[in-house]
Amino acid sequence: MAAEIVNPRSDNGADQDGGGEPHDSFDPAFALHRGGKMAVQATVPIRDKDDLSLAYTPGVARVCTAIAERPELVHDYTWKSSVVAVVTDGTAVLGLGDIGPEASLPVMEGKAILFKQFGGVDAVPIALDCTDVDEIVETVARLAPSFGGVNLEDISAPRCFEIERRLQERVDIPVFHDDQHGTAVVTLAALRNAARLTGRGLGDLRAVISGAGAAGVAIAKMLVEAGIGDVAVADRKGVVSADRDDLTPVKRELAGFTNKAGLTGSLEHALEGADVFIGVSGGTVPEKAVASMAEDAFVFAMANPNPEIHPDVAHKYAAVVATGRSDFPNQINNVLAFPGIFAGALQVRASRITEGMKIAAAEALASVVGDDLAADYVIPSPFDERVAPAVTAAVAAAARAEGVARR
Amino acid sequence: MAAEIVNPRSDNGADQDGGGEPHDSFDPAFALHRGGKMAVQATVPIRDKDDLSLAYTPGVARVCTAIAERPELVHDYTWKSSVVAVVTDGTAVLGLGDIGPEASLPVMEGKAILFKQFGGVDAVPIALDCTDVDEIVETVARLAPSFGGVNLEDISAPRCFEIERRLQERVDIPVFHDDQHGTAVVTLAALRNAARLTGRGLGDLRAVISGAGAAGVAIAKMLVEAGIGDVAVADRKGVVSADRDDLTPVKRELAGFTNKAGLTGSLEHALEGADVFIGVSGGTVPEKAVASMAEDAFVFAMANPNPEIHPDVAHKYAAVVATGRSDFPNQINNVLAFPGIFAGALQVRASRITEGMKIAAAEALASVVGDDLAADYVIPSPFDERVAPAVTAAVAAAARAEGVARR
Repeated sequence: MAAEIVNPRSDNGADQDGGGEPHDSFDPAFALHRGGKMAVQATVPIRDKDDLSLAYTPGVARVCTAIAERPELVHDYTWKSSVVAVVTDGTAVLGLGDIGPEASLPVMEGKAILFKQFGGVDAVPIALDCTDVDEIVETVARLAPSFGGVNLEDISAPRCFEIERRLQERVDIPVFHDDQHGTAVVTLAALRNAARLTGRGLGDLRAVISGAGAAGVAIAKMLVEAGIGDVAVADRKGVVSADRDDLTPVKRELAGFTNKAGLTGSLEHALEGADVFIGVSGGTVPEKAVASMAEDAFVFAMANPNPEIHPDVAHKYAAVVATGRSDFPNQINNVLAFPGIFAGALQVRASRITEGMKIAAAEALASVVGDDLAADYVIPSPFDERVAPAVTAAVAAAARAEGVARR
Repeated sequence: MAAEIVNPRSDNGADQDGGGEPHDSFDPAFALHRGGKMAVQATVPIRDKDDLSLAYTPGVARVCTAIAERPELVHDYTWKSSVVAVVTDGTAVLGLGDIGPEASLPVMEGKAILFKQFGGVDAVPIALDCTDVDEIVETVARLAPSFGGVNLEDISAPRCFEIERRLQERVDIPVFHDDQHGTAVVTLAALRNAARLTGRGLGDLRAVISGAGAAGVAIAKMLVEAGIGDVAVADRKGVVSADRDDLTPVKRELAGFTNKAGLTGSLEHALEGADVFIGVSGGTVPEKAVASMAEDAFVFAMANPNPEIHPDVAHKYAAVVATGRSDFPNQINNVLAFPGIFAGALQVRASRITEGMKIAAAEALASVVGDDLAADYVIPSPFDERVAPAVTAAVAAAARAEGVARR
């Protein structure tokens, strides 16, 4: 077909803009990303005039008319219920910070192909040229008819909280900020298995989270929701507690439902006798603070590429060690959660993703480990093919149980 | 891969919303459109941790950093220069009128797969939940970082003119309203060949266009630009002429550069002695008006499914007859133009699509017919594999000549 001949990508092997290669040409990342990482494909044939007259005019008009008469049919006769917008404003991209929408696109494309590969979900990168909360909410709400869900990505805190909340109020498709909830779901799954391994319940555990950004806040909420004994969250100024007068609205809310023990002061102080350390901050935790934790502690040092506590140090004191890195055991990787969560939500045409659906996802993810549970195996590999189907089924069932499913 | 198991589309063979089948279940269009007509695919492998660490974190961060430092690299290392947004507000969908964004999606998906099939261009349907001109312009401008071009589709006149103009002023990627310019390009190509067949130049021809909507206005502009002898445009109230006091701003502008002959009155009156009829209005033209046209006239009756003049009638009087239908010869079909126009523009990273690029597209399209030119073959078939490469190359060359190419 002509497509082979004129693909606009086929001609971009050479950098013709006169600037030469911008990078280490031995870096395989640049070769891999050249021309982008994704494409669109037709799933119906267009071989001749008959095909054309069904897929396009005049046949398509009958399908349009049917949807105009019964709007819910859009889920049956378009790709709406298969496709998610991966939306960013480029303000908090990986650890790189505010690099803008264009520079964020390689990450959004990467996210899109992970959606496809691991969840069978089509996803489209949408990097927005605006950072104002009102504008982002308005813009994405206007796009909503075309999509079955919205995955917010790499939007800086605290804006990300308000954007997610207000957008979900506006649209009838799920809105999910993966940096918050994806991380929280996988963390909870690992924590459940670590607790099971050491014969404890979540209610027996006191956790300390280092970092009060998107991930830290979401993990704290989810652990409380799941019944953890106590959780304290520390930002750069120490434990978030009600007596502090420098708290943002989000952290004030956090102080209201965390830190039952009424801890104040430094992260190191909070770690004395704690059962769980969860690092989503970057920074470094001194070894003596790790040494001061309770027996059989869990250390989840998830900063990437440099964990807050190096696994070699953590292993001296902790019963279970997890990181965000793929080259150590127990990688806390969001790809274990978001593809299945959206696949499940789309499958039942959920209008939102509830706390119950997220907890069901964490439980399903934890259960994949089964009888193979061990200190170096509290969470499955991203390439374990059982993961996405288990999460998908659990999320779909939870959506029905919670009354947000539409089929 | 897990994708096979959990694809959310795999479960939608049955209509579970309780409403039963909404349509004639023998209509093959519904079977074809079920589940949508398109998908996203990864173009790089993610087989193991090494692949993941290049396509996603940590490898992707180096690519993001390079783009942040040299923004033009977004064209090299993402799919931006391969992907077009197919944007509508659902206000003028086919002949169905204002059916809203969801009901327009089957058409936008159809358009997207035609982009891919015929031009190798990736395209994403974006049906907007807003109809205000300011809001549409703002919204699409905010999406622009993610795309290499914007194809506006099925937006009602006269709003479509202002949206296209203002949006192109805002963004540095091509904005192209296909209902206007695609139709105009294919019409001009057919007209050039009809003129060649009958030994006339464009300057020898007087044309009458029935319809002053998006297509009629664009065809008039393009024919004048290409050097037609004279062109008059008729709306429902007759020929658009400067002495009318009921003209919209767009029609007032039209009156300024068309109708050198100073015609007034009805379409039928204008057709007396005219060389070319171009119908983009619907409605019916009486046979006696066709009979009154000049010898060796051309009748392009493009309304779909009912041409303004039935080809059987037109053939009694005209030397060349074209329609918008696939079941008669000489189909004026936009798919002959838009895939190659965008493929050419994307190939050279054009910042806009100029009049010169459109005229180059028309010339290239006309030239495909070559020595096979005949009364029933003034325009190639949409399935002629020479079309897209010819249009692509001509548009890319014209973009360079006109100084809007960036590579």
